Amino acid sequence: MINVAVVGASGYTGVELVRILANHPHVKLSCLTSRQHAGKHFSEVFPSIAGCCDLVCDPVDVDLIAEKSDFVFTALPHKTAMEVVPRFLAAGKKVVDLSADYRLRDAEVYQQWYQEHTSPQLLADAVYGLPELFHAGIKCASLVANPGCYPTGSSLALIPLLEQGLIDPETIIIDSKSGTSGAGRAAKEGSLFCEVNEGFKAYGVASHRHTPEIEQTLSAVHGGAVTVSFTPHLLPVNRGILSTCYAKLENPVSAKELLQQYAGRYADAPFVRIMPEGALPNVAFVKGSNYCDIGIVCDERTGRVIVVSAIDNLVKGASGQAVQNMNLMLGLDETAGLMIPPVFP
Amino acid sequence: MINVAVVGASGYTGVELVRILANHPHVKLSCLTSRQHAGKHFSEVFPSIAGCCDLVCDPVDVDLIAEKSDFVFTALPHKTAMEVVPRFLAAGKKVVDLSADYRLRDAEVYQQWYQEHTSPQLLADAVYGLPELFHAGIKCASLVANPGCYPTGSSLALIPLLEQGLIDPETIIIDSKSGTSGAGRAAKEGSLFCEVNEGFKAYGVASHRHTPEIEQTLSAVHGGAVTVSFTPHLLPVNRGILSTCYAKLENPVSAKELLQQYAGRYADAPFVRIMPEGALPNVAFVKGSNYCDIGIVCDERTGRVIVVSAIDNLVKGASGQAVQNMNLMLGLDETAGLMIPPVFP
Amino acid sequence: MINVAVVGASGYTGVELVRILANHPHVKLSCLTSRQHAGKHFSEVFPSIAGCCDLVCDPVDVDLIAEKSDFVFTALPHKTAMEVVPRFLAAGKKVVDLSADYRLRDAEVYQQWYQEHTSPQLLADAVYGLPELFHAGIKCASLVANPGCYPTGSSLALIPLLEQGLIDPETIIIDSKSGTSGAGRAAKEGSLFCEVNEGFKAYGVASHRHTPEIEQTLSAVHGGAVTVSFTPHLLPVNRGILSTCYAKLENPVSAKELLQQYAGRYADAPFVRIMPEGALPNVAFVKGSNYCDIGIVCDERTGRVIVVSAIDNLVKGASGQAVQNMNLMLGLDETAGLMIPPVFP
Amino acid sequence: MINVAVVGASGYTGVELVRILANHPHVKLSCLTSRQHAGKHFSEVFPSIAGCCDLVCDPVDVDLIAEKSDFVFTALPHKTAMEVVPRFLAAGKKVVDLSADYRLRDAEVYQQWYQEHTSPQLLADAVYGLPELFHAGIKCASLVANPGCYPTGSSLALIPLLEQGLIDPETIIIDSKSGTSGAGRAAKEGSLFCEVNEGFKAYGVASHRHTPEIEQTLSAVHGGAVTVSFTPHLLPVNRGILSTCYAKLENPVSAKELLQQYAGRYADAPFVRIMPEGALPNVAFVKGSNYCDIGIVCDERTGRVIVVSAIDNLVKGASGQAVQNMNLMLGLDETAGLMIPPVFP
Repeated sequence: MINVAVVGASGYTGVELVRILANHPHVKLSCLTSRQHAGKHFSEVFPSIAGCCDLVCDPVDVDLIAEKSDFVFTALPHKTAMEVVPRFLAAGKKVVDLSADYRLRDAEVYQQWYQEHTSPQLLADAVYGLPELFHAGIKCASLVANPGCYPTGSSLALIPLLEQGLIDPETIIIDSKSGTSGAGRAAKEGSLFCEVNEGFKAYGVASHRHTPEIEQTLSAVHGGAVTVSFTPHLLPVNRGILSTCYAKLENPVSAKELLQQYAGRYADAPFVRIMPEGALPNVAFVKGSNYCDIGIVCDERTGRVIVVSAIDNLVKGASGQAVQNMNLMLGLDETAGLMIPPVFP
Repeated sequence: MINVAVVGASGYTGVELVRILANHPHVKLSCLTSRQHAGKHFSEVFPSIAGCCDLVCDPVDVDLIAEKSDFVFTALPHKTAMEVVPRFLAAGKKVVDLSADYRLRDAEVYQQWYQEHTSPQLLADAVYGLPELFHAGIKCASLVANPGCYPTGSSLALIPLLEQGLIDPETIIIDSKSGTSGAGRAAKEGSLFCEVNEGFKAYGVASHRHTPEIEQTLSAVHGGAVTVSFTPHLLPVNRGILSTCYAKLENPVSAKELLQQYAGRYADAPFVRIMPEGALPNVAFVKGSNYCDIGIVCDERTGRVIVVSAIDNLVKGASGQAVQNMNLMLGLDETAGLMIPPVFP
Repeated sequence: MINVAVVGASGYTGVELVRILANHPHVKLSCLTSRQHAGKHFSEVFPSIAGCCDLVCDPVDVDLIAEKSDFVFTALPHKTAMEVVPRFLAAGKKVVDLSADYRLRDAEVYQQWYQEHTSPQLLADAVYGLPELFHAGIKCASLVANPGCYPTGSSLALIPLLEQGLIDPETIIIDSKSGTSGAGRAAKEGSLFCEVNEGFKAYGVASHRHTPEIEQTLSAVHGGAVTVSFTPHLLPVNRGILSTCYAKLENPVSAKELLQQYAGRYADAPFVRIMPEGALPNVAFVKGSNYCDIGIVCDERTGRVIVVSAIDNLVKGASGQAVQNMNLMLGLDETAGLMIPPVFP
Repeated sequence: MINVAVVGASGYTGVELVRILANHPHVKLSCLTSRQHAGKHFSEVFPSIAGCCDLVCDPVDVDLIAEKSDFVFTALPHKTAMEVVPRFLAAGKKVVDLSADYRLRDAEVYQQWYQEHTSPQLLADAVYGLPELFHAGIKCASLVANPGCYPTGSSLALIPLLEQGLIDPETIIIDSKSGTSGAGRAAKEGSLFCEVNEGFKAYGVASHRHTPEIEQTLSAVHGGAVTVSFTPHLLPVNRGILSTCYAKLENPVSAKELLQQYAGRYADAPFVRIMPEGALPNVAFVKGSNYCDIGIVCDERTGRVIVVSAIDNLVKGASGQAVQNMNLMLGLDETAGLMIPPVFP
């Protein structure tokens, strides 16, 4: 059993890591940290976890964490993450960082959308943790930058089209809708039940920080700069991201043909499920699981393809993918601990 | 007081008409019909309405309805509507039809997306009831075809751009999300609480029947054929449609300038609210009201404009707009009975 | 038109007062205050209200408010309310206070459940604003203590039984479930969407501050001390309180007989609706309205009566009842501005 | 691996059995039946299950099922269940029946609350599948009657009190609130999203069919007839039952003492979690899991104890408990396949 730490365990991605790792056959949770709840039983912070994990929250003490564990998940806000990640690496630990701090390969782009980067020297070695694209790199990495939730869903939807040169990259529009757990557990007026329930809105239009991350991935796949319109929306559900992606087809093609290409492209990807022709994803069908469901419609009238993907933002969009990356980094079966069927209804 | 009938009162648009008309200063509900509930008190079917309306449901008997009322709302499914609307007109009644049967001016287009039309001769005289576009025509009409919910929200979002020639009409994408009351009160598995709650999906992609209706309006405004990509989604809320509309700008322009143009365009439209710069609509802020809220973002990076509109699908998207049309047809104040502030939260 | 101020307008009961008063035929909103948002347009704080009210938020300056208005609603947290209410009274204004500060007639009881009372001398003159019980007193009052949301629903359910001596007062159990707007708009972790949605819990069991308020009313009606078990629960809806009330019947009686007695008791209460035999209330059927719906079941097997009441906690449970009280205090029609049909669905 | 059939797999308890059994270490799903969907892939009926189970739905053919499987779960409506259960038993299969047909030991009581019983001779041998009470019996049983959802939660809450004679059995009131999946997947108007969402109501007051089942269990524990008031309510969540149980204490006792007694009573029950003093259950904290959480408050003012329990109605209230029973009947570890942490949020 490998000893594993979750640093920043008291957020929603933290408790989700605990939920998944508590049942993982090859690892043992050895350390959970929480600044706010240090000294409390984790199950007092999250009663859902009672009986599954009896750890007491530690403070964020890098030496202590490094002593207790062989592998570290950092589930901290961006900026806070890069204050500790270099120290875990220096202590010889492998790290999956769930923040945005090591996702953008170009420190200048990071600084433009976030703030100054304090460990830009690590960017070259950090591997972007989208296993469906960077499988080999992740296996050798010491530091994996776990992708953002929106970039995961939309990249998986668009990669096959760009790899095959089937669409005009200048026409990509990504209209995404995310469940509210994506906003985290911080007490903000905008995240209150009565503000979100029975509501629906767009936010961060043409300015959301996941935009450069999506563009970095799609540009790498396309082999040239790709600029996209990306619009996130806030959905009154706990979990789930649905991304509706539009692009002009270079040549007419049927949904059936595209679905076959997608099935081939993702044949070795255990968590991508291609829907049958005529069926479309629903976030309800991936809830609690590491799956990414993809459905496709081709519109002859407009010459556009519409690709729709659904993930659970806390699993494939965060903690599940993080465990998938850990599995690869440790040479374990990629699916270990992750074959959790979705909870429906 | 004008005597008013609601034919097909037992659906959600029916009870919404009753809610609005019960408080209307110039009309009196004189007849409610329901095949299924004939003989029952309407307040037994909808206990919400107890104390506000004590009518008993009549069967759908055209002669009886015509005798009891001066003005008729038909809130029936398409096809059923065109079986009775001609008879009300023949009896000298003015009619607002909430079905799709008289919305498309071209019977062939109707037949392509719906079924055979049994009273195509009425299409020339029917006026499309979008008061912000056809104010004058509605005032003189005997038959108003009340717009669909999606077409209302998306047309109001795009009309000013097309009128001013500011966008490339070939690049229009409308990504809409509707509350579940849009699916009606019929008992279908797909509308069950557990199927919808905590879920989100696209449906009718590239094939929804509101597409030709949207295109008819936008083509009329543009002065030439406009083809759009329209994708509806099912939102786990009772009420509300948010439409996120994308198009390429012909020339760079700022959101501030566009907002001013929109404010001017809709200066005489009492139910269109243009959001301040930087603010975006939320369906929660129009719930229960006849407002359509519009917000705008211009994206310099992509050269696209993103216009977001929000309506309550049962009010501005159906029954409220129907009453607005009735007000115009009867020479009443356009806002009579409709100045109902949204219910938030 | 009477000039009316809402002090503490930026909470949910505040915006609800604005929603109702914006359409009131006899009053004019003249002043809205908000410590946090002073200087901002109220419609910026609550975009739902745009077009209905164009006031700018004032700071909480008693002299300014008194100058601008003839009648004052204080929608402040308890303790804060009693800091300003005496000053409005001294300035000759009539006041409806929506806090708990003047509800309990006995300052000692108040101190036991809340904190020290700083204006106990006003308690003798304050009238408890339950119009169905204290109609005459409210009409003459200068200060009305608007009842709590739970006490309103449960008192209306139980008053007729106690007035007629039909139940054993020692056996009363009130199991109440409230929508989340009852928790207010403060940013607290426990009120976050993801904490409340898909959840349900009891809280404040055997210790909630509305307990002495309920007991004060029921004791007054009974003519002797009544002690009850009261359990509030948090419901994942925006609005609504359902109270399921249990008591042992002194003698066997049928639901039909009780329903008749209730109908008689509330014959002059325009906002109490007694359900037909066999029907039971649903918070969905009172949403947005000032109604209190009541249904009754008699259980021969156990000798108990079960009375269920439903209100909208923000309307009959707060702001609607406050306006009802204002109407009485000003000699207006009790229902002025309040005949708003419920919004369903 | 033991071959297992789920008869009636297309309901919510059916798909929940599939979700749990797909990951069970010692059994293999060998047969799923659905009258309505025979011939379709199960993953077409429930896309959530794609990749976890690739069975095609069989018709309900007893011989075929018996041939394919060693153990049978019948997840059929009552009455339909007793048409097939005797035949599976005759074919030598062990059966867990999730319907109500074999829960009541007295055929007359069954007939009074349901309809005529067609295999009353089996009632003597059927074991009521509440493992926390009938552990030994279940281990030897061929037919286990899986408890109803409400009876599971409320019985676990009250058993320790009655076993110890701590409460007056004539004063028991059970106020329960269930998520909507309890109403099943049948397309009924009352289960539509817009009818349930933002609503809350009591139903079946003093007449719900789970009442005699609860009384049968509590009477057995008490050693004499127990009659209870039981009120179910419909909660706008997918999953979860919270039961708030009231009773008069025979003698004063503290919550701390009771919590210790409960901890002792359930020391060998792996799925009962006793909350720490001062904490109370929330259905959100058991979602997707087989846990039953219990919290206790003692009210000195009224001499009552309030016990609150939470379960997931589809897991501990149905399919999870069914698998727990299967484990016992097959001599497997009671928790096999069931140590699934709750999904929160």
